[in-house]
Amino acid sequence: MDWKAYAAQKRNSILQLIPPAWKLSVAVPSPSEQKDVTGKYIQQFLTTKEITITETDAVGIVQKTTLGQWSAQEVTEAFCHRAALAHQLVNCLHEIFFAAAIADAKKLDQYFASHGKPKGPLHGLPVSLKDQFHVKDVETTMGYVGWIGTFEGKKGTGKEKVFESEMVTELRDLGAVLFCKTSVPHTLMAGETMNNIIEYTWNPKNRFLACGGSSGGEGALLGLKGSPIGMGTDIGGSIRIPAAFNGLYGIRPSHGRLPYEGVANSMDGQNSILSVVGPLATSAGALRLLIRGILSRDPWLHDPLVAEIPWRHEHEQFILDIARAGSKKQMCFAVMKDDGIIHPHPPIRRAIEMVISVIEKLGHRTITWAPPSHQEGIDIAGKTFMFDGGTDVRAAFALSGEPMAPAIAQNYAKQSPEYTASQIAATNVQKRQFQKKYMEYWNSTSTITGTGRPVDAVISPLAPFAAAKRDTYDYYGMYGGAWYTTWVNLLDYTAAVLPVTTVDKEVDVVDEGYEPKSEQDEMIHKTYDPELFDGAHVGVQIVGRRFQEEKILTITEILGHALGRLVV
Amino acid sequence: MDWKAYAAQKRNSILQLIPPAWKLSVAVPSPSEQKDVTGKYIQQFLTTKEITITETDAVGIVQKTTLGQWSAQEVTEAFCHRAALAHQLVNCLHEIFFAAAIADAKKLDQYFASHGKPKGPLHGLPVSLKDQFHVKDVETTMGYVGWIGTFEGKKGTGKEKVFESEMVTELRDLGAVLFCKTSVPHTLMAGETMNNIIEYTWNPKNRFLACGGSSGGEGALLGLKGSPIGMGTDIGGSIRIPAAFNGLYGIRPSHGRLPYEGVANSMDGQNSILSVVGPLATSAGALRLLIRGILSRDPWLHDPLVAEIPWRHEHEQFILDIARAGSKKQMCFAVMKDDGIIHPHPPIRRAIEMVISVIEKLGHRTITWAPPSHQEGIDIAGKTFMFDGGTDVRAAFALSGEPMAPAIAQNYAKQSPEYTASQIAATNVQKRQFQKKYMEYWNSTSTITGTGRPVDAVISPLAPFAAAKRDTYDYYGMYGGAWYTTWVNLLDYTAAVLPVTTVDKEVDVVDEGYEPKSEQDEMIHKTYDPELFDGAHVGVQIVGRRFQEEKILTITEILGHALGRLVV
Repeated sequence: MDWKAYAAQKRNSILQLIPPAWKLSVAVPSPSEQKDVTGKYIQQFLTTKEITITETDAVGIVQKTTLGQWSAQEVTEAFCHRAALAHQLVNCLHEIFFAAAIADAKKLDQYFASHGKPKGPLHGLPVSLKDQFHVKDVETTMGYVGWIGTFEGKKGTGKEKVFESEMVTELRDLGAVLFCKTSVPHTLMAGETMNNIIEYTWNPKNRFLACGGSSGGEGALLGLKGSPIGMGTDIGGSIRIPAAFNGLYGIRPSHGRLPYEGVANSMDGQNSILSVVGPLATSAGALRLLIRGILSRDPWLHDPLVAEIPWRHEHEQFILDIARAGSKKQMCFAVMKDDGIIHPHPPIRRAIEMVISVIEKLGHRTITWAPPSHQEGIDIAGKTFMFDGGTDVRAAFALSGEPMAPAIAQNYAKQSPEYTASQIAATNVQKRQFQKKYMEYWNSTSTITGTGRPVDAVISPLAPFAAAKRDTYDYYGMYGGAWYTTWVNLLDYTAAVLPVTTVDKEVDVVDEGYEPKSEQDEMIHKTYDPELFDGAHVGVQIVGRRFQEEKILTITEILGHALGRLVV
Repeated sequence: MDWKAYAAQKRNSILQLIPPAWKLSVAVPSPSEQKDVTGKYIQQFLTTKEITITETDAVGIVQKTTLGQWSAQEVTEAFCHRAALAHQLVNCLHEIFFAAAIADAKKLDQYFASHGKPKGPLHGLPVSLKDQFHVKDVETTMGYVGWIGTFEGKKGTGKEKVFESEMVTELRDLGAVLFCKTSVPHTLMAGETMNNIIEYTWNPKNRFLACGGSSGGEGALLGLKGSPIGMGTDIGGSIRIPAAFNGLYGIRPSHGRLPYEGVANSMDGQNSILSVVGPLATSAGALRLLIRGILSRDPWLHDPLVAEIPWRHEHEQFILDIARAGSKKQMCFAVMKDDGIIHPHPPIRRAIEMVISVIEKLGHRTITWAPPSHQEGIDIAGKTFMFDGGTDVRAAFALSGEPMAPAIAQNYAKQSPEYTASQIAATNVQKRQFQKKYMEYWNSTSTITGTGRPVDAVISPLAPFAAAKRDTYDYYGMYGGAWYTTWVNLLDYTAAVLPVTTVDKEVDVVDEGYEPKSEQDEMIHKTYDPELFDGAHVGVQIVGRRFQEEKILTITEILGHALGRLVV
């Protein structure tokens, strides 16, 4: 059997796990006929109760489930149904295990009935997972045809469909219900989501555009409200890009805050810029709920790379005290409108201005962010991502003989020389020196913020466009477009996505007079087309220092509230 | 000028910085004539007041200096005098800057006089530094002849004698007085201290034996009470070995607890097992004083690799509450008497038994530590330390053409092939899997401790001998003897040294019937000679989980107190 047959078999097996009652009875319209399949479009296939449940954020859901007002079963069934629809609309799932989820939900309901209390703070909350997390009885392909029927590409390990990632165990113990795994670009090293199994995952809000990547299936699924919260990973923007492209909240925590233990990955063991796990959700409160839950489990006792930093309520309170009406205290934000390399499209610039207005309206301050050369950072990150010259991902493709998607082939079609230990060490030193320089720049802002502190956060685009057109997202920092996310990974900062607005073709007109700074800049400038992008989501990122998850989530929630987007 | 002339010039320049009044008027006796130059021997050259000051631990010193009872100047002068004597006895200094120290102390006294309060919690406390720390107006050679007149081997950087390490800045801001830098083995990768500049640093308690390494000059200096506290570094035992060999307390914190920023190093950028900074001192309380001080400065704002974990008083209190008389609560310690690879010498085994007795006398429990294979860990650590095949250290020797000491030549005389990115990544994965396995073993002990918790700490030898004979300490894990320290580095655990006893030739007799487990084991078994080792210090290590510095220091202090060794 060739790779195409394996891929087709797997693709069909996913579709076959959708119960007949949840199969779409109508053909999916073309993007020209129906650009946006969120909202009213998908609602037509759901009951009123299903709509009510699935359009409630995770915080609202657990308020009901932990009091027994909604059963775990009805919540789970509603999300399974909506997720099934979402997959048929935009190809966002890799694994479906609705039956197991509903069985788990029933057990939770029994637990509630017999104990008179919820199992944990996430009792009955459906959580979707990017297809890197291992779940018992479920396969993990990570988009590789060659991983079908294996454990991370290896056969006969005894771990196939048995082993579970640490995060999965913790989520179950907190009472969450796991029900599906979502699509990823093969290799994970892309800002779009495509592979030879499920093919391409489209953006449900604007089906001419990408859903983002690499946690793209999560973005698309949550964008359709087929899940209230999902777990992604981010090594160069992979949580933030799909969060923003789908109008969601999301957070890239610093490395070592949440457990990555036992999660499949590309280039595992590359130790310089590490991938992190983090949630995407329809509210900032949902992100806090999940992170607090996980930290309450002392994950540092089960993942050797997690630092012992429990949830710090006082860090939230510090911001809440400033923000409280009548406090007479201020925050100060730095704003980076343009990184000097790629000029963001008009809707992104408008979103940044909207956030500045909101900050000022709330009585806080802004300054301009003028950091050390981001070009230097791009060079370091670019080297790091190419340490093995493609060895790891090429071996995964070789398992089946399947071809690489164009965005992947551009980096990995040919094997590059592997870096030596000395070259890696030199890059690590260069990275640390860049981090130090950047850190001291951040410290230096205390003289101009007017608050007596350095800036509380940096507001920045996370991509130069609202969403990418197919095959235009250059993920790696070295190509410029992705550097709006990757600088955060290089510096190991905390960054949350704040959904701000949508593209408005009447307002966000083309910059006719813009003179590009480079060929790359020109290329990205030219991809903007108001008619095509109209309606697409626009988000920005709120960046904090290392391990500032509590502070950044609180700020993000405050700004989201002020923008009228407490729950999206 | 050849390397010998440069080395001699540097060696003489150090000696010339000792004021004539502090030069020894008598020839240093041979080790056969005077094995032990600590205590009464060195006291003969000091005034009563100098003895009182220098035999007070850091906690006692700052109690006096921060109340103005002792001036910073008199304290500094006393330690400078004693350090000058120490160097003449055992070759423990690389850099002397007594004049600058006394000038700094005078400024502190002026500060106290004009402000009526100390500058900080370390006001007037002399702190010695391993010769990896950069101090303004002072050179850093790290024992390399080729680094003389350079900044880390490079000329014309503009940083020479100007740049300061982050830790140095923090110590000054806390009120500490820096006065000398101490000897290291060239490369730092040795458990003994020798280089072509100062030659060999001997153990002051038993001058037939090594002072340990790589923070060996610190160990010897503090062993002679020429400093109350000093900063070392530890990648495979380099704080713990000299602490134990010189009867001191010392701590190897987890990586990311204290700032390493701007400190010179070997193989900088090797990112798998990272060197850490930590103090050695004459009391556990002194270690706490210094670490609390550094953490009060928010070092995570100045070192990108430091995690935001402030000093956690509640972690100390947790142990103090258990230990309080009448609490009826217990701790449980795991004891590893033998790692199954190298059998410790009789005095080490006796020290372990002494600690067990003390634990039982205090009403706590012990179990046997039966962890995952330490041989597997040795293999991983051995690979990590050879990633660059010698490229970095060989380049440093090549600068001057100087020869390697035998312990160094054994690993680096020939260039080995460099590891590739893929090989490094595979080693990193193997390391993480070993850490996870070890962590789950630790967790599993909760079923047998009787306390409801996993073991609170592990008691283990940190070397199979009380101190090494010259040229017998195989530092690297792959040779077995050093694995008693290196497993802690591989696992990134917190480990403190508890000074327990001294070798007693009458009690610690040779194991006549012992059957060695291997050639290595036999070799180490044969190095034991009660007559030669008689009087040498014996310490053990108290090992805690990652980032458990507060807990481990508290336990170490309690056990030291019970052993009658609150201040050594």
